[in-house]
Order: sequence, then structure tokens, then C-alpha cells
Amino acid sequence: MDIGTVNALPYEDFVNIFGNVVEKCPIITAAVWSRRPFANLAALEAAISDFIEGLPDSGKEGILRCHPDLAGRDLQSGMLTKESREEQARAGLDALSSAEAWRITRLNEEYKRRFGFPFVVCARMNDKEEILKQLSERCVNEPAVEKARGIEEVKKICRLRLQGLVLTDAHNKL
Amino acid sequence: MDIGTVNALPYEDFVNIFGNVVEKCPIITAAVWSRRPFANLAALEAAISDFIEGLPDSGKEGILRCHPDLAGRDLQSGMLTKESREEQARAGLDALSSAEAWRITRLNEEYKRRFGFPFVVCARMNDKEEILKQLSERCVNEPAVEKARGIEEVKKICRLRLQGLVLTDAHNKL
Repeated sequence: MDIGTVNALPYEDFVNIFGNVVEKCPIITAAVWSRRPFANLAALEAAISDFIEGLPDSGKEGILRCHPDLAGRDLQSGMLTKESREEQARAGLDALSSAEAWRITRLNEEYKRRFGFPFVVCARMNDKEEILKQLSERCVNEPAVEKARGIEEVKKICRLRLQGLVLTDAHNKL
Repeated sequence: MDIGTVNALPYEDFVNIFGNVVEKCPIITAAVWSRRPFANLAALEAAISDFIEGLPDSGKEGILRCHPDLAGRDLQSGMLTKESREEQARAGLDALSSAEAWRITRLNEEYKRRFGFPFVVCARMNDKEEILKQLSERCVNEPAVEKARGIEEVKKICRLRLQGLVLTDAHNKL
């Protein structure tokens, strides 16, 4: 799909296609439809980022709380969204040793107890060793630092999900 | 569940239970968890209302766009959320005559073309005749008026969904 096609979508199709570029937050996609037409994919991504930045702190925490734990309950029970399932599998999080699974569960719990939201990282940019390392390191950050960091990771996840759905300018020129 | 139990919920349980009090907008529930403890159900409802009012206009339009058409495609295909399905059925929207179905489809299309978001009304406070009447009348409103009206209906829907989940003070005193 190219950006011209995206700009011509009725809101229902737009939300059906892009509704999960920010995990379980179709309101964000549905809101930025008001800002079409988008000059290119970067403009759509910027509109999403602007909307997120315009939210109060509680709204940013809300976005983070809509994310599943990595290698957590939703993965075990098959309740992940299609996008999260693919991303966690690609990072090797669906095939942990029992020692790794125990460690990530323990660290996820520690992280959530400290911050009141889950550890969010762009799984497609990391393998399971790197994810475990970051989770361990980020557990000791200050809450404000970690909230900002989580939102930056949300934007990276969003960018990769968008790139999987819309042809970039580079693609268009091929 | 009483308000004390609500206030003691970890965010994951809170979002699992209350995540759809605003249709397909768990971010709102997840955001207001930051404002606990709530003195009573009215305080939780007010926190949700405050969050909605704090959104930019595009965000309010985004909320409306997360709502399904009444007696629309999602009802026909069984894709409604549990809450919407029950509410639409209670208003008689799952058992329309073919003439009624044709009329509501045509009016929904006209409404969406005019406003860029769907007609939202608290189905539990209306029967199908009243809904068709309102849909027909509201189609001619100004966009700003209709956006505000849609959000007021979202809040009514939210109130009734909350009351189905939390014991009110009146209940508590029984």
C-alpha cells in the first residue's frame, strides 16, 4: 500500500489496518486520521508521535500499561495480539529455557512493582539476551526516566509496524 | 466488587476488568489507574470523564471512531465487543425488520459521510424506534455540536458499564 492509498481510506478501514501500530491503542490511529492527508509515511509516524507527546503523563503510562509482559502470561495463554506474538517469537521469547523464563518473570514482576507499568522494549531490535540485559539494567532507573524510555520504545515498535504496512519512499522509487 | 477492592487492584487486573468501559479504549482505563484511590464509583467515573475532556479534539474524534455502527457490519459478523453486543441486543437492534435495517444502514452512512465518525448513542437508554429517530435528527446537526453530543453519549455508556461492575454506595449500604 502506498501513501496515496492510505490517504484515501475511510476511517473504518484506516483503523482496521493501522489500529494496532500502538499496541491496543486504536484511539491513537483513529485520532490521527483527522490529520490526513499525510505527505509520506514519516508524516503519519510524526502525527502519531505528536499525539502521544500531547497526552498527559497518565496517558503515557496508560499506553505502557496496554502492553503485554515480554514472555509473560499473554504469551503463555495465546492471548497476545498478532503483532506482539510475531515480535516476541522473532526475539526468541517463545522458546526460553526454564532458567531464562524464571529470570524474566522475576524481573518483570520487579519492574512492574517499581514503576506501575510493564517493561516495554522493541523486541524486533533485540534478541533475548539483550532484552534480559536491558530489563535487568532498566529496573534501577528513576521512574520519570523509565517512563520516557518506555515511550521511546513504543515509537520504535510503531515505526516498524508501520513500515510493515506502508511502502516507504525508497520502496516507491524502486 | 466494592470500591475498596477496585482500589487494591494491580493495573493488569484493573485494565482487564474496566478496559472496555469506554469502547475499545483501554488506554483511558489504564491512564486513570494512576489516579487511584477513588473515593467512590463517581470519583472513578469523574477521572475517566476528566481524561476524555483533556484530550485534543482529534482524540475525542478518535474515541468516537472506536465505536461500532449500531446494527452495522460488526453486529452482522459477530465482531462486536461483549458489551456492545448486549447493549445493541437489549435495544432490539439485532432483530430489525428489513425496512428498519435498510433505513439504519442508509442513515449510518449519511452520518459518517457528514461527520467522519459514527453515530454514538447510549443504546441501553433507548429502544430501536427512539434510536432511529435520533439518528435521523442528529444527521443535520453542526459537526462541533455532534462531536460534543457523541462524547456525552460515550460518558453515559461508560457510566452504565461501570455500574454493572462496581457496587454503588447505595448498594454498599444495603
